[in-house]
Amino acid sequence: MTEDGGLLTPVVSMAPGAMILIGGAEDKKGDRAILREVAKRVGDGCIVIATLASEEPERQWERYSTVFCDLGVGRLEHLSIQEREHANCESLRRMVSGAQGIFFTGGDQVRIATKLGGTPLFSLIRSMHQSGKLILAGTSAGASAMGETMLVSHGTRQQAHRVESAFFMARGLGLVRDLVIDQHFAQRARIERLVSAIAENPGVLGIGIDEDTAIVLENGTFGVVGSGVVYVADGRGVTYTNVTEKNSERTLCLFDVKLHVLSHGAAFDMEARRPGLA
Amino acid sequence: MTEDGGLLTPVVSMAPGAMILIGGAEDKKGDRAILREVAKRVGDGCIVIATLASEEPERQWERYSTVFCDLGVGRLEHLSIQEREHANCESLRRMVSGAQGIFFTGGDQVRIATKLGGTPLFSLIRSMHQSGKLILAGTSAGASAMGETMLVSHGTRQQAHRVESAFFMARGLGLVRDLVIDQHFAQRARIERLVSAIAENPGVLGIGIDEDTAIVLENGTFGVVGSGVVYVADGRGVTYTNVTEKNSERTLCLFDVKLHVLSHGAAFDMEARRPGLA
Repeated sequence: MTEDGGLLTPVVSMAPGAMILIGGAEDKKGDRAILREVAKRVGDGCIVIATLASEEPERQWERYSTVFCDLGVGRLEHLSIQEREHANCESLRRMVSGAQGIFFTGGDQVRIATKLGGTPLFSLIRSMHQSGKLILAGTSAGASAMGETMLVSHGTRQQAHRVESAFFMARGLGLVRDLVIDQHFAQRARIERLVSAIAENPGVLGIGIDEDTAIVLENGTFGVVGSGVVYVADGRGVTYTNVTEKNSERTLCLFDVKLHVLSHGAAFDMEARRPGLA
Repeated sequence: MTEDGGLLTPVVSMAPGAMILIGGAEDKKGDRAILREVAKRVGDGCIVIATLASEEPERQWERYSTVFCDLGVGRLEHLSIQEREHANCESLRRMVSGAQGIFFTGGDQVRIATKLGGTPLFSLIRSMHQSGKLILAGTSAGASAMGETMLVSHGTRQQAHRVESAFFMARGLGLVRDLVIDQHFAQRARIERLVSAIAENPGVLGIGIDEDTAIVLENGTFGVVGSGVVYVADGRGVTYTNVTEKNSERTLCLFDVKLHVLSHGAAFDMEARRPGLA
């Protein structure tokens, strides 16, 4: 036992594994730049396709296994969990233990959090990722679930004089800290919910990822891959918000958000919160 | 004649008239806060409903004349121009001369600019507004047309791997300087085109107005009225953009935009570029 009682603490000297977060609808037939990036990092190892978010897990498995096989990944496994209790199954833990990467498909991010959050399987995934043994990738809901806070739609509601998108915030897996990730960004008019998340906690960085676009997060910096744009909303310099005024009738007011628009070739230092060119 | 040859320059000592720019779909049946604001400023004077942007000018005239009549405006006139040459008609100049306000309805902003821009009727409108004798209001396309630059959609186009909204920039009436105004903002996923406009000219302030929301611009400051949000994108602190690199394949990159989210009760000083509470 070490002096600081570190016996139970695993010695983690390596940096966490890479994380690739995709805004959904990534190219699967052309150049496949984003999925190629995932495949390259898994190499001849094993990738686990996790279809927890989907209502059609078999279809998603077929879709992605075909692409990753074609991109030369060594081995493929399908992680499908119908009920939360199945996450304790020993065979699933063996499957994850032997993997170099996990790819979370799209669907509903709440399904990922409710089936996986707090299970021994999740602890295994987190510790493998933290110690640099596992890369994590996710598209659409699979990307959103990685953050500590998720933005979840529940359709649209008719307000007095306008229709507005309704959403709530839910607890995500927290595999990446201090980020709120939103996907299908430009395509689904989501600046409103991203700035709302920033207003709730200006310490959090809001990331809005377009379709067919991804961030590749590694060593505290992320780069941008794909054909679209990544919006980074930084609320640390916010000088005023009315979000704490407990009046649900009140429409958001928020001064001095910093916004960056990043595309392929740009990078972002998460610690310094500064953009740059890769 | 003055020393500086100012004989032909009209002496304008008054501030310009108020300008009310609405994001479209403003309430016409309930409290009608925005249209009430317009009506209040016209009082028992005459409001001209300008339906230049619309394909159905008669229907728009009926719609708005009913509301403004109901809100107690003294007198109503309909300004409908089918062809640009009709803008020279003496009776239209008389109509405008006797008005206290003009309200531009929605439709296609390019129709407003092509029918009215550069005509003697337009010069009359501008000079009356500049000398504080005329308030100007516009909703949707009618708001966008007021700026020096307009953002104009032409549907959506299918890119290699994604559908993106296509738009171009066109010359607006320039009745308000250094502003690009976009409408139906949250409802139509328009952050992309607003930041693109900022990238083209960071000296310009980008204003994205939600539906049923308006800015009331007066004495260099605007306030927010209505149920939604106004996004103000200020590019003066931008540290990098790739917009000048002449490569149309290139996706936008833009660092350090300042973004403010303003709702009812907030105000913005256009000169100092600072938000505040009204």
